[in-house]
Amino acid sequence: MTQMEMARKGVVSDEMKKVAEYEGVDVEIVRQKLAEGRAVLPKNKLHRIERPMIVGEGFSVKVNANIGTSQGFSSLEEEKEKARVAIEYGADSLMVLSTWGDLREIRRAIVEMSPVPVGSVPIYDSAVRSYQMKKNVVDFSEKDFFDMVIAHAEDGIDFMTIHVGVTRRVLDRIKSSRRVLKIVSRGGAIIAGWMIKNNKENPFYEHFDELLDIAKDYDITLSLGDGMRPGAVVDASDAQQFEELFVMGELVERAREKGVQVMLEGPGHVPLNEVEMNVRLMKKIGKGAPIFLLGPLPTDRAMGYDHIACAIGGALAGYYGADFLCYVTPSEHISLPDVEDVREGVIASKIAAIVADVARGNKKAWELEKKMALARKNFDWETMFSLSLGKDVAKKKYEERPYPDKGCSMCGPFCAIKIAEEFS
Amino acid sequence: MTQMEMARKGVVSDEMKKVAEYEGVDVEIVRQKLAEGRAVLPKNKLHRIERPMIVGEGFSVKVNANIGTSQGFSSLEEEKEKARVAIEYGADSLMVLSTWGDLREIRRAIVEMSPVPVGSVPIYDSAVRSYQMKKNVVDFSEKDFFDMVIAHAEDGIDFMTIHVGVTRRVLDRIKSSRRVLKIVSRGGAIIAGWMIKNNKENPFYEHFDELLDIAKDYDITLSLGDGMRPGAVVDASDAQQFEELFVMGELVERAREKGVQVMLEGPGHVPLNEVEMNVRLMKKIGKGAPIFLLGPLPTDRAMGYDHIACAIGGALAGYYGADFLCYVTPSEHISLPDVEDVREGVIASKIAAIVADVARGNKKAWELEKKMALARKNFDWETMFSLSLGKDVAKKKYEERPYPDKGCSMCGPFCAIKIAEEFS
Repeated sequence: MTQMEMARKGVVSDEMKKVAEYEGVDVEIVRQKLAEGRAVLPKNKLHRIERPMIVGEGFSVKVNANIGTSQGFSSLEEEKEKARVAIEYGADSLMVLSTWGDLREIRRAIVEMSPVPVGSVPIYDSAVRSYQMKKNVVDFSEKDFFDMVIAHAEDGIDFMTIHVGVTRRVLDRIKSSRRVLKIVSRGGAIIAGWMIKNNKENPFYEHFDELLDIAKDYDITLSLGDGMRPGAVVDASDAQQFEELFVMGELVERAREKGVQVMLEGPGHVPLNEVEMNVRLMKKIGKGAPIFLLGPLPTDRAMGYDHIACAIGGALAGYYGADFLCYVTPSEHISLPDVEDVREGVIASKIAAIVADVARGNKKAWELEKKMALARKNFDWETMFSLSLGKDVAKKKYEERPYPDKGCSMCGPFCAIKIAEEFS
Repeated sequence: MTQMEMARKGVVSDEMKKVAEYEGVDVEIVRQKLAEGRAVLPKNKLHRIERPMIVGEGFSVKVNANIGTSQGFSSLEEEKEKARVAIEYGADSLMVLSTWGDLREIRRAIVEMSPVPVGSVPIYDSAVRSYQMKKNVVDFSEKDFFDMVIAHAEDGIDFMTIHVGVTRRVLDRIKSSRRVLKIVSRGGAIIAGWMIKNNKENPFYEHFDELLDIAKDYDITLSLGDGMRPGAVVDASDAQQFEELFVMGELVERAREKGVQVMLEGPGHVPLNEVEMNVRLMKKIGKGAPIFLLGPLPTDRAMGYDHIACAIGGALAGYYGADFLCYVTPSEHISLPDVEDVREGVIASKIAAIVADVARGNKKAWELEKKMALARKNFDWETMFSLSLGKDVAKKKYEERPYPDKGCSMCGPFCAIKIAEEFS
């Protein structure tokens, strides 16, 4: 049984208990949200997960960190280090998005070591194999689509991005689209290219039931990928994006009917004034399914600092109901991230998630804010550092520019808290 | 005449022309907003400013960078370097908030070198002088309040933070306040301490007309400081904060009557769900006067990364109408920022300002977004870097992990833009 099926039958799994404890809520709430499909608990039956997560309505906002190789940068050791650092700084899940080296070896190694759920985009493997065989990146068979999904499922992958909304009908519209950047989703472009080259429907869409059967067997959570997401603020929130969303909306119902856990992926690049609308529309069309956002970036001019732009968009999206934020690193749009980028990306997205939790009135988040305020009042630096998402970074800064008395070198003897203390 | 008086008399100053050109608007709009007090153009008559700024309704969101020494870290050279870096990365103004060394020498040096307006908090000087004379930091005379304002005006300071809303009545309320942190404003604490020690009203409030006369003589823009701003998310948006705001609201009218330019400072620490309310309330009570925000930080758990928390709060505040964002550096709440902190702080706040500009439909901001999207489509890296706020940071990253073909090392041969190009 999938977690969803168990929940529907009133069975409380160990994972449900664990996430209920982590969230500080009654397990009955967890069970109910899973049964309704308003939350997902990604966990492949073959994967032992120490720290499972629940993603969805009423729960804390989660953060995903993408890792993975690319041509020229395909060290397994570096990817393992990225995974370790991402988890250390609070990533709730990892996605292994390798496009170079021995993809299966890397994927298995990460699944093996990861205490959190691991996701992937199986179609990448087909494209990479074709390219490595000196063929065009979209030169693979219809069967490959599903073979790769099964291979990833066998490797213990917990959730998979499937660009199933890239249908003939949706692709057709792109011809008249006035977007500056037509397609910026890697998986979306691969599938679109395959469809055009072969003059065929998207196999994931055409044989969606087959996909659901595989997902059900392993309890893979399907993450309906947004292959048509806008790739620039100027392209945001267009018909292309939303027509794909409407396809996803239909498929959410079909997945739920089969007891398969499902969530929706969303943009991407969205000006801040359209974030609320995007999130609400996704929740409406997706029948309350959890939302997994790639960003959103509310400006394209933050290159080198896209993690900050992403934190701005993600925090607001989270406040309006996005459940799961995919981090962006300082290297986004520039190069493959290194370990340091991963750390900075995770911290920025965790800040966004916590800002959203606080804004949504999450009890646990407020308790920690209160502890921080008290630690500040008491000049209790160790507690402050331990409550900080940057932990050692904050501590290192403090030690680099110390102040010998109570307080810090920002204000020295002119610390407002000290002066206020003296006169009240 | 002040810029406001000129505007009211239909006189168009050189500075008005310059800012109109920068904003890409008709100078008549500038003149009108200045006349109404819905915008300010901070410029001391004694200060030659190459790049004046207009702050207020309908104009692009501006960013201020605080620099200045503290005990143990009082190198003039370092402060000059901070100023240089802040301006290089796009700060629209500087505030010199030194609390150690020869304050006047540092202030004059920064005013001298700065192509942008410079602000200060004159009361710091009184406190520092007392402390350096081995007296209590609040041990100075009523006359000192105004002497320091005049001294700063003589030094060419363009805008000054005056904590005039810290009245006896407002302070009285703090006794029953349940805040964790009673006062976190340095200037606010100094004035409150002085008032309690001397059992007197706030001289800036009691003799506000005298202050206005000085401001008018030099055309100092008064920035009504929020000495009662909350210092933690858990303390946000309380009666203490708003009663001070109500005092400021009255004083805005008195300043306008005298032709003195005035803006309002605001918090501070605000959960994201209260940002809109705070900004709208400030605009309402302040009769549309420009708003200068210190943050706001929507979580207190981002120590070491407070610039990111600040960018989140600032972007949203800017979208809702805040006009002027005071940056926060990664060292906020930890230590005095160094040059690197200043750079990171300015970039983060500029991102927030641009995100707000885009969300508010600023034409110039949208044109630049469009250029960036086109540069991405064309793989025009030099244009991308030049449009990026991080400029050299992005370029350096690109060169560190290069990809030998069109595209970048993120996706290598699997670049969505390239695949989409091939099949469309």
